[in-house]
Amino acid sequence: MEVFQNRIKNPRLLDRVVSAEEAASWIQDGMTLGLSGFTRAGDVKAVPMALVKRAEAGEKFKVNVFTGASLGSDVDKMFAEVGIIHKRLPFQADPTMRKKINAGEHLFVDHHLSHTAELLRANVVERVDYAILEAISITEDGMLIPTTSIGNSMAFAENAESIIVEINLAQSELLEGLHDVYSPGKQGERDPIPLTKANDRIGTLGIPVDESKIKGIVFTNQVDSPSTIVPPDEETQIMANHLLDFLRKEIAKGRLTEKLAPLQSGIGSVANAVLHGMIESEFTNLEVYSEVLQDAVFDLMDAGKVDVASCCSITLSEEKMNQVYRNFEKYRDKLIMRPQEISNHPEIIRRLGLISINTALEFDIYGNVNSTHVSGTRMMNGIGGSGDFARNARLAIFVTKSIAKGGAISSIVPFVSHVDHTEHDVDVVVTEQGYADLRGLAPRERVPLIIENCAHPTYRPQLWKYYEEALERGGQTPHVLEKAFSWHGNFAKYGSMLEAETVTK
Amino acid sequence: MEVFQNRIKNPRLLDRVVSAEEAASWIQDGMTLGLSGFTRAGDVKAVPMALVKRAEAGEKFKVNVFTGASLGSDVDKMFAEVGIIHKRLPFQADPTMRKKINAGEHLFVDHHLSHTAELLRANVVERVDYAILEAISITEDGMLIPTTSIGNSMAFAENAESIIVEINLAQSELLEGLHDVYSPGKQGERDPIPLTKANDRIGTLGIPVDESKIKGIVFTNQVDSPSTIVPPDEETQIMANHLLDFLRKEIAKGRLTEKLAPLQSGIGSVANAVLHGMIESEFTNLEVYSEVLQDAVFDLMDAGKVDVASCCSITLSEEKMNQVYRNFEKYRDKLIMRPQEISNHPEIIRRLGLISINTALEFDIYGNVNSTHVSGTRMMNGIGGSGDFARNARLAIFVTKSIAKGGAISSIVPFVSHVDHTEHDVDVVVTEQGYADLRGLAPRERVPLIIENCAHPTYRPQLWKYYEEALERGGQTPHVLEKAFSWHGNFAKYGSMLEAETVTK
Repeated sequence: MEVFQNRIKNPRLLDRVVSAEEAASWIQDGMTLGLSGFTRAGDVKAVPMALVKRAEAGEKFKVNVFTGASLGSDVDKMFAEVGIIHKRLPFQADPTMRKKINAGEHLFVDHHLSHTAELLRANVVERVDYAILEAISITEDGMLIPTTSIGNSMAFAENAESIIVEINLAQSELLEGLHDVYSPGKQGERDPIPLTKANDRIGTLGIPVDESKIKGIVFTNQVDSPSTIVPPDEETQIMANHLLDFLRKEIAKGRLTEKLAPLQSGIGSVANAVLHGMIESEFTNLEVYSEVLQDAVFDLMDAGKVDVASCCSITLSEEKMNQVYRNFEKYRDKLIMRPQEISNHPEIIRRLGLISINTALEFDIYGNVNSTHVSGTRMMNGIGGSGDFARNARLAIFVTKSIAKGGAISSIVPFVSHVDHTEHDVDVVVTEQGYADLRGLAPRERVPLIIENCAHPTYRPQLWKYYEEALERGGQTPHVLEKAFSWHGNFAKYGSMLEAETVTK
Repeated sequence: MEVFQNRIKNPRLLDRVVSAEEAASWIQDGMTLGLSGFTRAGDVKAVPMALVKRAEAGEKFKVNVFTGASLGSDVDKMFAEVGIIHKRLPFQADPTMRKKINAGEHLFVDHHLSHTAELLRANVVERVDYAILEAISITEDGMLIPTTSIGNSMAFAENAESIIVEINLAQSELLEGLHDVYSPGKQGERDPIPLTKANDRIGTLGIPVDESKIKGIVFTNQVDSPSTIVPPDEETQIMANHLLDFLRKEIAKGRLTEKLAPLQSGIGSVANAVLHGMIESEFTNLEVYSEVLQDAVFDLMDAGKVDVASCCSITLSEEKMNQVYRNFEKYRDKLIMRPQEISNHPEIIRRLGLISINTALEFDIYGNVNSTHVSGTRMMNGIGGSGDFARNARLAIFVTKSIAKGGAISSIVPFVSHVDHTEHDVDVVVTEQGYADLRGLAPRERVPLIIENCAHPTYRPQLWKYYEEALERGGQTPHVLEKAFSWHGNFAKYGSMLEAETVTK
């Protein structure tokens, strides 16, 4: 078939084309799968679904599922529903899977997104039996050209016993040439990563694979799931403005220029709104060095604000996706896609001095951040890359709305119920109320800033009351430990963290 | 004077020799001082004491004191006693100062030791008015040759308005040639740090300074305070053996060789004991890439086990100090001293793939580590470099005895009262009971390993009881939040975390 030859340029691989069902039949109980895909982009679609069908037909088996980050195409949902997962890492964002994880029905290892490749390379986690990787094509010399994400695909290809390739005809061939695939090699034997600018090219255009490992090639034709992001609302817009104010003050103090510094922005609507807020700003010649590019980065490019955007995944709304691929030449020269190990690498993050913007679930009066666990126990999505960035960035910024559930929850609490980012790693916190710049401050200096600038006015008296009681006990970081989680307790018992409501109930 | 000319080789600086009292008289209320010194080594001694005398004579003033890490020579103690500190960063280890910090009498900013230089360079913390730096000599071209530590001296010299040099005649001139001073430059404009092996030399033999900044040179003659480390006892020896067992299993699995990987070991007796335990082991051709070299590293060199030892400070017991400087030629070729920004740099730590061993105050059933706060509120010393290393190392290992205060405190608790290292950053925990390898494990998988391998048998039933109650509530990380800190509460109230004792009281 001509389409096979167009996409499989190494003729020795042509006879490995199989159906998704056949490829899925090779997967056995107890195996570990490494799936391409990062935040709904570039995930494999057909073989996972064929695997789901085996389970639906009554077959009993479980597999470990390693990915880049969350999957689209309902793969996580279906895997969770049919119960074929033993262990899942390093990130997910599906409501059904979340429920199963929190019920203890399967294991979930929540780790820094730059660490998966190291753990595989060091032979610390299970070896990948099948890497199942989406590609646009396979080159003559056997490289896989990835699609809308690279994620951990390089690491899976290196580590896997066998590889199944899904060539997705629905993915734009225009993506070819955007990828820059670099493997740092083993710890202790590696050279410096030779990247000093966000747009440096340091690797190959595709993932080099050992062709003998390619066991099957499946053709698919299904677009990525569109981004679920919601457009900026009034509150996210206000938060964005606070953050822009902060950045303007940094410029006024001579700490930044109008070019700012390479920007990283986590997945989610708030981070997207912040970037969106830059469209009408004076900031110019911006650079993005991030994991995921969402709609806002392309809007910024349309506005002529962005010189370069480096990522490991492109996740767009349906409308934006259509617009971008219809006008791809406008974006091509500014885009570069990397493995997540490189987009999230501490060496690069520290060297470039990123401005890193990520979402918090809650933060406390001393600046510790919870990004993952609702009420300290129930997993939301996972830490993702926020830790890779926050620890090593020039500016580690966390954003959240000051209240949730109509005011029943304060996102600013005495003591976060789970710590993902410690007081040592959080530079600036932002809510719709304002921001607190915590850099170089002792814990007791941080408290008034956080309460007065960030907490919702309804909760400020309660926070002051807690802190004053704590202060009487003293310490570098005063606390009333027996009341530290009482706000979460009240919410569980009375449906509100607000004292007035919990006292009357 | 001949001694002046021997040590000040730049003749233009000869007339800047002053008394400590005169130099101290330049320091005014509200100023920020950058003092050399890291873990009792290479601190300035005379000017700080002259400053203390001014306060003792009744003068009222306060200064910010920035250092590399803890100071020796009772400087922190005296500063705290006379109450001249407004803000202190980034680490201290003095009991008197600790008391003042916890009473809220002065501010203490506890941050990662690799971050101070970045904060200074980015103009985020107060500018240093006077850098006061200990040196062996000043070269003809104006470089300062540091003594037993480099710490933040390079960053202070770059950032300071003026510099006072203390040339300490009691420090061995043999140290000259050991230092390797490298500044990475500004974030966003820097090149890769060209260090790929623990013994690479990448910088200059001294700290380049702008000679016009040198306002005074003070001659001193006082040895460093000896290390306060205690020799290995039976329990630290057992912990060391567990750790060596773990490393042997890593070799058996092909993950390490007998050379291991460059070792970092935090300050303290346990970490020292671990290295000591390697003397009689099969491990060979070891490399050390650490902050502080304590006695054990020199014992390992004596045993022919160490090929190279890189550090930013050498802190020895009195006996070892005498022995080392009497036989310095034996050690010279193996030693290299760097700024703490380089010894603790995430880029290097990740590239070399360090094995990092640090001390915990307590850890919890999910592997979160508290390194700093007694009962969540009272500062012990500070996080030091443990975060720089743990986040980026190949192996982040934390050690502590399973109980303290004769069993009244369990170091393994349901929920740590302060989080310095999150569950994402802790690979292996070790007590005298055994070790738990947490890599690649989900929270629910970690609990039995931590309880059974690490907790003291007296506390295991209580930990299981907590976990079983938590499990009934479910979640990725099950907790009974209202009881999470009850152990700390019981200790505060009844003097013990042990249920049998608290119930009867």
